[in-house]
Amino acid sequence: MLGLIQDRPLLIQQLIEHAALNHSDTEIVSRTLEGGIHRYTYGDAHLRAKKVAEALLALGIKAGDRIGTLAWNGYRHFELYYGISGMGAVCHTINPRLFPEQIVYIVNHAEDQLLFVDLNLLPVVEKLLPQFKTVRHVVAMTDRAHLPKDLGIPNLLVYEELLADQPGRYDWPVFDERTASSLCYTSGTTGNPKGVLYSHRSTILHAYAAALPDTLNLSARSVVLPVVPMFHVNAWGLPYSAALAGAKLVFPGVALDGASLHELFEQEGVTFTAGVPTVWLALLQHMQANKLKLSTLKYAVIGGSAAPPAMIETFDRDYGVEVLHAWGMTEMSPLGSVNHPKAKHLKLSREELLDVRLKQGRPAFGVEMKIVGDGGKELPRDGKAFGDLMVRGPWVTRGYFKGEGGEIVDQDGWFATGDVATLDPDGYMQITDRSKDVIKSGGEWISSIDLENAAMAHPAVAEAAVIGIHHPKWDERPLLIVHRKPGAKLDKDEMIAFLGIKVAKWWLPDDVQFVEAIPHTATGKILKTRLREDFRDYKLPTG
Amino acid sequence: MLGLIQDRPLLIQQLIEHAALNHSDTEIVSRTLEGGIHRYTYGDAHLRAKKVAEALLALGIKAGDRIGTLAWNGYRHFELYYGISGMGAVCHTINPRLFPEQIVYIVNHAEDQLLFVDLNLLPVVEKLLPQFKTVRHVVAMTDRAHLPKDLGIPNLLVYEELLADQPGRYDWPVFDERTASSLCYTSGTTGNPKGVLYSHRSTILHAYAAALPDTLNLSARSVVLPVVPMFHVNAWGLPYSAALAGAKLVFPGVALDGASLHELFEQEGVTFTAGVPTVWLALLQHMQANKLKLSTLKYAVIGGSAAPPAMIETFDRDYGVEVLHAWGMTEMSPLGSVNHPKAKHLKLSREELLDVRLKQGRPAFGVEMKIVGDGGKELPRDGKAFGDLMVRGPWVTRGYFKGEGGEIVDQDGWFATGDVATLDPDGYMQITDRSKDVIKSGGEWISSIDLENAAMAHPAVAEAAVIGIHHPKWDERPLLIVHRKPGAKLDKDEMIAFLGIKVAKWWLPDDVQFVEAIPHTATGKILKTRLREDFRDYKLPTG
Repeated sequence: MLGLIQDRPLLIQQLIEHAALNHSDTEIVSRTLEGGIHRYTYGDAHLRAKKVAEALLALGIKAGDRIGTLAWNGYRHFELYYGISGMGAVCHTINPRLFPEQIVYIVNHAEDQLLFVDLNLLPVVEKLLPQFKTVRHVVAMTDRAHLPKDLGIPNLLVYEELLADQPGRYDWPVFDERTASSLCYTSGTTGNPKGVLYSHRSTILHAYAAALPDTLNLSARSVVLPVVPMFHVNAWGLPYSAALAGAKLVFPGVALDGASLHELFEQEGVTFTAGVPTVWLALLQHMQANKLKLSTLKYAVIGGSAAPPAMIETFDRDYGVEVLHAWGMTEMSPLGSVNHPKAKHLKLSREELLDVRLKQGRPAFGVEMKIVGDGGKELPRDGKAFGDLMVRGPWVTRGYFKGEGGEIVDQDGWFATGDVATLDPDGYMQITDRSKDVIKSGGEWISSIDLENAAMAHPAVAEAAVIGIHHPKWDERPLLIVHRKPGAKLDKDEMIAFLGIKVAKWWLPDDVQFVEAIPHTATGKILKTRLREDFRDYKLPTG
Repeated sequence: MLGLIQDRPLLIQQLIEHAALNHSDTEIVSRTLEGGIHRYTYGDAHLRAKKVAEALLALGIKAGDRIGTLAWNGYRHFELYYGISGMGAVCHTINPRLFPEQIVYIVNHAEDQLLFVDLNLLPVVEKLLPQFKTVRHVVAMTDRAHLPKDLGIPNLLVYEELLADQPGRYDWPVFDERTASSLCYTSGTTGNPKGVLYSHRSTILHAYAAALPDTLNLSARSVVLPVVPMFHVNAWGLPYSAALAGAKLVFPGVALDGASLHELFEQEGVTFTAGVPTVWLALLQHMQANKLKLSTLKYAVIGGSAAPPAMIETFDRDYGVEVLHAWGMTEMSPLGSVNHPKAKHLKLSREELLDVRLKQGRPAFGVEMKIVGDGGKELPRDGKAFGDLMVRGPWVTRGYFKGEGGEIVDQDGWFATGDVATLDPDGYMQITDRSKDVIKSGGEWISSIDLENAAMAHPAVAEAAVIGIHHPKWDERPLLIVHRKPGAKLDKDEMIAFLGIKVAKWWLPDDVQFVEAIPHTATGKILKTRLREDFRDYKLPTG
């Protein structure tokens, strides 16, 4: 027997409609590429999102068509989010920082019909355009006055002219809530990028969960500045959850340096921001160097990689900002988990609470998590056992666009995140490693990250990396690779002795190798694939 | 084209599973009918909810069967919420305060198979049992030791014995999220009660929306005491949204007097409570008389009827408690709207803010509201125009159980609430009247409540009521009926003159009639149907 409740589908266009009706004068502020600050309201944005939809229809765009965007965080990008998805097409956000050949691959794989491009990215598109197979028009996200004169882009359209021609009287259509709404490619370390195709339903459910008090805690008193880009998993969903909550939005454009961000935080009364650790490092350095404070900021979400303990402490102690340590993935829309204390933690000292805050947080209702060991056996939630982190839920992907990568969920619907983690009895998850980096020794797992952190605590160590080396008896054993600080002295025995008081005996590396430098990825992570190559012919000493 | 996201249905059993996994030691505290306080955890509750499901299966209950409960707010009722709905049956909560013939009607109309009954309500059921046509077993919600000896209820079962027989290893089934989950009858003023049949989907979406910062603001730091009964629209959804947030729950049982509530608030560190104005009146009186304070309470939700301004002020000024003025209906699961300030209100003085707080709040995302005048024409959202309040959304009913009352939504899916309201440009809604009480004069509407409030501001008025009287030219004109304070002097001219400085001239009542008493409903509201009868033959003076 079914309930007798209205069959209202969950649709993205309802978010902007809700914001326009109930928060019509709430501001959306953008630092623009043309220069200066642009400000308007949810009411204005709604009208212009309708004009976007009308312009797309006029250009012959149909439901299901993919529309690419190459753009930073700004109000026109925001309008495209709603205008494209709201008329039934798919908003495909493209990371302009990808290698040119990746951009070409992605645009062609998605079969983008139109490309909306920010002013300073037009030269990139000009160069790649001959390789785009399906793009009918490029739309410059500016007005005629700011358009560079000598662009060699045929059929170029100008965003403000497109909108000026439209009446803005569009009635948003109502359709199946499972309809595809947006597309974002993950740039994995191997193989071609793979597309995650979100639905209206998944986006709305994620927006509800994201705005909850123990997730991002968004209300009509919040002022939200997403540093995380709108091409990076929809800026962690903030353009949706801010509209759901009626929060003021502040878009920083391309100026993500410490000085520009600090200025915007203070001028606009920002209470909430979100980004990766490197951005916050720059902000903290700028504030420390210039003796600045933050007068309105309450929450800084740190995701993308683990939040360093010192960063959590500094934000809290020196600036009165609560760090929300978070974890997610493109495949998860992206939230995951966010770290908020429970009632029982409120009695803890700041130091004791830091131990809780180092974890990546608790799953919002909707996300199911479990950890499994070899053979897929579920491991205990004791905060100690660590295993492959599996997730499931109504905003978790079930397969990549066009079936790339094949089956990616198991028969019970679990998706393997590629992370190794612990879960504790209070529901807090902590990432301990990447699945491909964990060392499997005699059926037990050793966390490479834990070993690296232990080694890096030694004053002579500049950087440390741990990889697994084949071992005839134990299958794999850890090799510690150390880059010493300039002039510092450290040998294998001292290093092992130092680790001996920090980790279990069977975790101790079988050997230590000293190197001149440790290779990194473009985003600063240790490039373990390269290290494994470098040490391919290395043999562990037999003891 | 559909998105590629997991098809996980939204199911109520996921809430208790989530709470048990992530908040296994968070407490659920109950004042029991047997005497004393019972405490256990979400982990314990989950195990026992599984045993409830197993017990139902053992009794031959199938998916879709209706299971009645006649019970107060306590942990066993909480287990039934999850055990019954989680196995696919329908949890039918029955208001024990209804007239016996209404209870009989409801149980038979719902075709309840089992009745779970609290200890002090067994005598009621004993008396009515011969009239119940479908009930196979009555289950006493207690243990054998506390069971009265001389009950004349054949086939009586004992709750704790039922559960003791079960292993608690039940795997919650996965089914269509639109499946009926629970049933609650509205006791309208006319006709038989009508059943609202909620679904798993509507309950989960409502739980997300209810926990949001601008709705009930629930987190794992909240301690929630629902005074609103679990038979009254699922205690406004709190047993669901508290589990979603991992909040501690405190169930007050039958002791809803000021002293008992205050004691529980303080002993359990309650931060959040919800109920109707009369409960809070008693609490405030008790605290004032005994010079008590509230050391942990932050939020008190007031719904059911309008929150008196003095109550909002007293809670805020004397006790540091923020009143969340709310509005909803059984037909809406029940939320509606909740009053929270916006960023721009934070600069207001306490007095200015009170004007905002008097409104019934803003709709949570998911609830659409509009107001319409005669002929269904939508009226402006200017905070002045008032019209019939219409609502729509994924937790609003589309028809009553078994089709009672016929079509209740229009062709666009709007449900007429029966309230008359204003909507302002900031999205705040304010109830100005009941649709059947508003006075339609010359095509314009006059709010009977506004006139009554204006009249009651006169020091000689004990109570005032306004009804519409037929008028040959204007269709209807207001008649003011006044009950003077003992010994007070007041005549028609003085009354009208007093009103003349408060309301528009064309709103002024055509006449004032003085009476010895104004009739009330059982819940203390003015009984206008009776007044209209009393004045059926009354003719307005011709001016």
